[in-house]
Amino acid sequence: MRVDGKHYRSIWISGKPPVVEVIDQRKLPFDFVVAELRSLDNAFSAIRDMVVRGAPLIGVTAAYGLWLSARESSMEGWKEDILRAGERLCTSRPTAVNLEYAVERGIKIAENALSRNKCIESLLEWAGNYAEEEVQRSLRIGEHGLELIRDLYREKQDTVNILTHCNAGWLACVDYGTATAPVYLAHDEGIPVHVWVDETRPRLQGARLTAFELGEHGVSHTVITDNAGGYLMQHGQVDLVMVGSDRTTRSGDVINKIGTYLKALAAKDNGIPFYVALPSSTIDMNLFRGEETEIEFREEEEVRNITGWDPDERFDREMIIVPRSSGAANPGFDVTPARLVSGLITERGICAASEKGILSLFGDRDQ
Amino acid sequence: MRVDGKHYRSIWISGKPPVVEVIDQRKLPFDFVVAELRSLDNAFSAIRDMVVRGAPLIGVTAAYGLWLSARESSMEGWKEDILRAGERLCTSRPTAVNLEYAVERGIKIAENALSRNKCIESLLEWAGNYAEEEVQRSLRIGEHGLELIRDLYREKQDTVNILTHCNAGWLACVDYGTATAPVYLAHDEGIPVHVWVDETRPRLQGARLTAFELGEHGVSHTVITDNAGGYLMQHGQVDLVMVGSDRTTRSGDVINKIGTYLKALAAKDNGIPFYVALPSSTIDMNLFRGEETEIEFREEEEVRNITGWDPDERFDREMIIVPRSSGAANPGFDVTPARLVSGLITERGICAASEKGILSLFGDRDQ
Repeated sequence: MRVDGKHYRSIWISGKPPVVEVIDQRKLPFDFVVAELRSLDNAFSAIRDMVVRGAPLIGVTAAYGLWLSARESSMEGWKEDILRAGERLCTSRPTAVNLEYAVERGIKIAENALSRNKCIESLLEWAGNYAEEEVQRSLRIGEHGLELIRDLYREKQDTVNILTHCNAGWLACVDYGTATAPVYLAHDEGIPVHVWVDETRPRLQGARLTAFELGEHGVSHTVITDNAGGYLMQHGQVDLVMVGSDRTTRSGDVINKIGTYLKALAAKDNGIPFYVALPSSTIDMNLFRGEETEIEFREEEEVRNITGWDPDERFDREMIIVPRSSGAANPGFDVTPARLVSGLITERGICAASEKGILSLFGDRDQ
Repeated sequence: MRVDGKHYRSIWISGKPPVVEVIDQRKLPFDFVVAELRSLDNAFSAIRDMVVRGAPLIGVTAAYGLWLSARESSMEGWKEDILRAGERLCTSRPTAVNLEYAVERGIKIAENALSRNKCIESLLEWAGNYAEEEVQRSLRIGEHGLELIRDLYREKQDTVNILTHCNAGWLACVDYGTATAPVYLAHDEGIPVHVWVDETRPRLQGARLTAFELGEHGVSHTVITDNAGGYLMQHGQVDLVMVGSDRTTRSGDVINKIGTYLKALAAKDNGIPFYVALPSSTIDMNLFRGEETEIEFREEEEVRNITGWDPDERFDREMIIVPRSSGAANPGFDVTPARLVSGLITERGICAASEKGILSLFGDRDQ
């Protein structure tokens, strides 16, 4: 998508000899800094220190990280070096599923390679293809979701207002995003769209990342507190809610950023369609009901403190907002029951948020 | 209620010659500073600059402000001076209903006074009584709400978990508060209570004021983001939701801080009682349905910026959290429809959130 008029992906190859480049997402939206990853060390730190974030992007960064490790591997022990690199990459963000998946695939390529040079070549090609697969998956999600926006526009003949929560955008993927993909495609084909962006406390991914993405691509949007969406829905200001998902159960329950459930309730109460956009890799066929998921409680400090940009000093500052003696609790995700979900937008099409709906598109995944 | 082990009200008289003292609420929770109001000017600025906030406290401050104006009035034109002071006080926070109400009452006393000295004396006595009325009203609300907590404790025989939004506490009143009054009474009689405090973006009154109040009085509590309440209700962590109200319609619709509606939806979805504590002065008998209310949109800057305490420099700093080119919207309140409200806790008792319920307690107000 565009940044300052230029097309970007969240990760790309550049220069001769080639290096990996990524956007340093910790500095967004106030500074746009491109970071070069020249070594396994660089790739490892980029994932660990959240220079890159978002499951799909983490996977692709790990893939390129394996390639970088091959390029710096020893002439004799290159296979062992790459294997060790894979193990190391897996520890950079222990809970990211895509990370292990990418590393497993890359290690297989290394194991089958006939020479060190061939291995370097194959890993680079594979990492590029892997990135491209992610882009295509987002694009398919976008095309299916676009139909919903087209229908709403046909009916309304006026700007379609979409509410989203957190960042399920191209910055978390490689391009297009998940929940944002239909929005970008609608915007690009000239449908007037406007996005209400939940700021998404505690980490403010909506205010900082989604607002940045949409703004740079020229999509009309407005940032709101997480408290405001219900009011807007009551007043006919929202035509569609579209969010991402970290994990979706076989029965269509959606585990996503904390606060998603509250927006789903408000959408239901006001008769507004609530759709979840997701790559099918996040559907957990072995998980039957959302209540079975254990929700990660993150550090209290994310609630007790808030990070904002100091416009004078031009850097992020952490301030406290809670009395020192008060405790805080920080559940990271909640479960939106399938009954509140109008449908799942996947790369294979839109289906009902139910076992039957999911199996109608992904029956081949059911073992 | 207690602060650092000592009992405080939010406004009191002290010294000889007496002055009015208030807690500078702008500095809470990180600094506890008592401000002296020695003149009409002081009282005016305290209201305008939000040294004091909360409808009941603003009313009482205005009452004392009239007394201060009488004390500094001229020997000849004292009545005119007090009248002008009243007009001026009314402009300090134009939308505060209690302000006009207090000034009207005070002006009547001045008009009926036989001498300047008698007038000063009467205004001081009246302002004190007015403050005491507010305390008694809060106490009655507390006693009625206490019954709910007692019942829950009797049933559960374990800590009663109460979720609240924004600050409907003693800092907004004179003592006890509205939504917090039942909590303080329950705590004081030894019922184990624990309060989930919504931080309440954009102005963070929950994180900053409610958490401070509860902590200083020794009430167990935990601050959460506004996104987290739904998760807690889904997981049996909330036994009761209790919030305040800025305005309640004849039919029981509740206009309160933005985000209240989302919590009411989650309470309903999880079968959790949702009560609203309010002084009957906030029931608008002429307003039939919540949708008829025009909701104030506050400055975008409250959303685009966030104010936190810099622990090194020991002062509040305003930081930006939204890209410069992104817009923001800031509705201040939302309407919780009566169908989501389990009951209204008033100084005359608890009633259903309906016209019938309200008239059963306040039929005498119906003209």
